[in-house]
Amino acid sequence: MNISHIEHIGIAVKSLETAIPYYENVLGLKCYSIEEVADQKVKTAFFKVGQTKIELLEPTAEDSPVAAFIEKRGEGIHHIAFKVDDVACCLHEAEEKGVRLIDKAPRKGAEGLKIAFLHPKSTCSVLTELCTE
Amino acid sequence: MNISHIEHIGIAVKSLETAIPYYENVLGLKCYSIEEVADQKVKTAFFKVGQTKIELLEPTAEDSPVAAFIEKRGEGIHHIAFKVDDVACCLHEAEEKGVRLIDKAPRKGAEGLKIAFLHPKSTCSVLTELCTE
Repeated sequence: MNISHIEHIGIAVKSLETAIPYYENVLGLKCYSIEEVADQKVKTAFFKVGQTKIELLEPTAEDSPVAAFIEKRGEGIHHIAFKVDDVACCLHEAEEKGVRLIDKAPRKGAEGLKIAFLHPKSTCSVLTELCTE
Repeated sequence: MNISHIEHIGIAVKSLETAIPYYENVLGLKCYSIEEVADQKVKTAFFKVGQTKIELLEPTAEDSPVAAFIEKRGEGIHHIAFKVDDVACCLHEAEEKGVRLIDKAPRKGAEGLKIAFLHPKSTCSVLTELCTE
């Protein structure tokens, strides 16, 4: 698997309206985009920090996976996304190495990326996303 | 606060011996250093991914803060560390903005960095480290 960098870190929050001012006013980062991902039932807010983005995730429905995460573990870091060249190829390679996949094939994520998730059972409990443009 | 990039992401694991092969063999990253931080009662393993490091944290004692984290939440992402120019100056600025500090002054962390933690109660539940060389 050829990972170039951490594309983004996903952070679950109850409310973008509450979280964005912390990231902007305390950390001095700038929210450059807010986007709803209907598929995942989340509203996202993006900040750039060097090579990596911070993606805040606010659930938009009670049955959103992010709502389930917050219910179980509280707000906090939700996943880490690695930039790779070819998501399908990496999924195939991971599966051959015994990794359990959440997505068997790449699908469309926020910012038009091709994304796929590996299951935390196979990744030392870190929900792991692979993504590419 | 002038953050240049994410210096590292700290991930709590029960055993480096179990976790390192996943990071090396599945993700294709290379562990370049293993270091014990006696002060924090952890053994750390470092991987470089673009600008950012992944720092695996294995507790070395039952009363290690990382052991308490794993006991409460299980293995997984523990903290995010932002690279800043001047940790003391950023702590002062954060405190003036009402942020609760874990460290009132910078202290020495792994890899000889000057580090300080902000309290997750003030950071949307993300344990946040500021660090510099």
